[in-house]
Amino acid sequence: MSIDFHTLSQKYGTPLYIYDFDKMAENYRAFKEAFSGQKSLISYAVKANSNLSVIQHFGTLGAGADCVSIGEVRRALTAGIERYKIIFSGVGKQDHEIEEALNEEILMLNLESEAEMKRVELVARALGKPARISIRINPNVDPKTHPYISTGLHENKFGVEISMAKRMYIYAKNSEFLEPVGIHFHIGSQLTDLAPIAEAAQIVADLVRSLKAIGVEIKFFDAGGGVGIRYAEETLIDPLAYAEAIAEATKGLDLTLMCELGRALTGDAGYLLSSVLYEKQNGDKRFVIVDAAMNDLLRPTLYGAHHRITFLGQVGQETSQERNKADIVGPICESGDWLAKEVALPQTRHNDLIVIEDAGAYGFTMSSNYNTRGRAAEVVVSQNSERVIRQRESFEDQIRLEKAYLHV
Amino acid sequence: MSIDFHTLSQKYGTPLYIYDFDKMAENYRAFKEAFSGQKSLISYAVKANSNLSVIQHFGTLGAGADCVSIGEVRRALTAGIERYKIIFSGVGKQDHEIEEALNEEILMLNLESEAEMKRVELVARALGKPARISIRINPNVDPKTHPYISTGLHENKFGVEISMAKRMYIYAKNSEFLEPVGIHFHIGSQLTDLAPIAEAAQIVADLVRSLKAIGVEIKFFDAGGGVGIRYAEETLIDPLAYAEAIAEATKGLDLTLMCELGRALTGDAGYLLSSVLYEKQNGDKRFVIVDAAMNDLLRPTLYGAHHRITFLGQVGQETSQERNKADIVGPICESGDWLAKEVALPQTRHNDLIVIEDAGAYGFTMSSNYNTRGRAAEVVVSQNSERVIRQRESFEDQIRLEKAYLHV
Repeated sequence: MSIDFHTLSQKYGTPLYIYDFDKMAENYRAFKEAFSGQKSLISYAVKANSNLSVIQHFGTLGAGADCVSIGEVRRALTAGIERYKIIFSGVGKQDHEIEEALNEEILMLNLESEAEMKRVELVARALGKPARISIRINPNVDPKTHPYISTGLHENKFGVEISMAKRMYIYAKNSEFLEPVGIHFHIGSQLTDLAPIAEAAQIVADLVRSLKAIGVEIKFFDAGGGVGIRYAEETLIDPLAYAEAIAEATKGLDLTLMCELGRALTGDAGYLLSSVLYEKQNGDKRFVIVDAAMNDLLRPTLYGAHHRITFLGQVGQETSQERNKADIVGPICESGDWLAKEVALPQTRHNDLIVIEDAGAYGFTMSSNYNTRGRAAEVVVSQNSERVIRQRESFEDQIRLEKAYLHV
Repeated sequence: MSIDFHTLSQKYGTPLYIYDFDKMAENYRAFKEAFSGQKSLISYAVKANSNLSVIQHFGTLGAGADCVSIGEVRRALTAGIERYKIIFSGVGKQDHEIEEALNEEILMLNLESEAEMKRVELVARALGKPARISIRINPNVDPKTHPYISTGLHENKFGVEISMAKRMYIYAKNSEFLEPVGIHFHIGSQLTDLAPIAEAAQIVADLVRSLKAIGVEIKFFDAGGGVGIRYAEETLIDPLAYAEAIAEATKGLDLTLMCELGRALTGDAGYLLSSVLYEKQNGDKRFVIVDAAMNDLLRPTLYGAHHRITFLGQVGQETSQERNKADIVGPICESGDWLAKEVALPQTRHNDLIVIEDAGAYGFTMSSNYNTRGRAAEVVVSQNSERVIRQRESFEDQIRLEKAYLHV
């Protein structure tokens, strides 16, 4: 689908997040179909793009929801995801979150430490409601990605080692208030190599077999997510090969195969549209200053992440053929406020449009009000419709929770 | 003043930002007094901590406001800062921001490029209101700080080179709608060495002299800010030496000396209070998981910033003497979600309190809703009072701008 960015900028202003719902559906179906012939549940990893309408879109297609806070569980429920398709992961669940999750009767809580398991048992006992749990295994496999998004090594805070996991499963099986139904691993984010995932799946499937031998029957095999997208020249993990690797690892076991995809479903279906404000030259360095900034898209400055830039210019205005390198930066008072470096761009004019590509995941969800900048609006386009799914944040929105406390 | 963190955590919950208003006043007065005997204006750099009550506090003490977006200008006005003490800086001002700033008749707009100056002239002409301006000079001085917070080199996006600045001042002097009244520089953030500031002040003061020779009379000499605080073992810039260096550089010139301080006024007067959730051990690595996270305090993961940690434990419970190294991490599903590394801590228990020190600047202002986590509450303590200045953000607050757009 070709998106009319110029019209969208006129209707909704910039900076603007734009999501292509058809592309998201296509991404989802590729994975769902890859798992056909298996009992499977594809969950949407809400943290990648938490907008209620995005979650609802995946829910309509049949997806479950992988949540990492009670806020995300509430988002999933509000967006209509069936409760038996919701899992609650994360290393730092608080008592009130555990209690609410148990009361909502979601599919299971994914546990990340022995201390957490004991806490869940305590809360479950107080409620008189056994907790369905899975345990996140840290398989100590190197996913070969950015250190900040690698999660499956012992030096990371995530999951538990295999020996510890075994002890926890045995404890849980013997507890009146814990029901161990799942197993989980997730070795990192933006993965482009299938081999470490396949290796981790083998390790974890072997654990399932040895648990079975001691009477712990796992029903849900959750292979996590982290499947990468193409920001630049990355090779991609093929959904079919991915599903096959997981099926192969779990051969002979009666399991529902699960995975939780965030970036792979939304990343390349999102765009951050921005307008040029000024060009300037400092010494040899050329800067194009646009109206989007690090508060809108943190990934470049936080991870050094690369996003392709498409220059659109203005309707009815010709663009010079000559292109020179420039850094694209935002209005925030910080040298770290950059969106793309060394991009070949024609001479720009005030109000020329640029598109920051692949901004559908970890874009809006990480945005802030730094420098008192209201967060961008979010709109959706598809074959059949175009609509706002989140209003642009106003100044009044930003001070709403503090204004009443001013001394008069 | 000693702060009763345990009582505050019981009353307001955690994570919680706590600001000591007496300490902020003391920080402000040290600089104000250092400039006594000079015409001077100390501005508060709103971006460091934008809470309306914090701005109001400095306003009551006599401070002006340095703003970097129209949102910050509105905050300053809402908090009662006098309009003739407000300046509007930043590399990416939009037309509507320029227009509003001119209509509000603030002291001046601080310009960062020739293109921006032309734009300001255009808007001023359309309004029929001349714009008071200053120009930010990029003196090409190395401030010796983190690359993300260094701003005074040509490779940074900030300010204009001296030759360009001269051309701009001459243009502005001849324009009916531009009134060049100020000059400005700001070479970086968290500076701990006075020498580069003194060097930049000399360079810029020389420019003032040569502008005077060609008939451009500058009234406001704005030495920026960026004065550092002691996160660890940093040496500090003495306010008196700082004021003297600026006075010395501008000797013989009839100027109002200005500076804009953010971190130096609020940084060491703020605390992020957090509760321990779990301890875990992965291989050799010990993690203490607390309820604050990178969405609450981004500095550690974004800059690798160090914040001292004070362990408070629980009232009436003894703490083991033995201390071992641990990483303090939050509940967010990301390895980058850490708050402090290799901190010597006793064995911790659920609900033990820790304080993240020096969190009064670039703490709350950079916080986000990542992982659907509501932003922390902010409270103020002082000799005479204790009060909330921003409510904890609820789930309903987070979905308020998007809920209406769900398909029913």
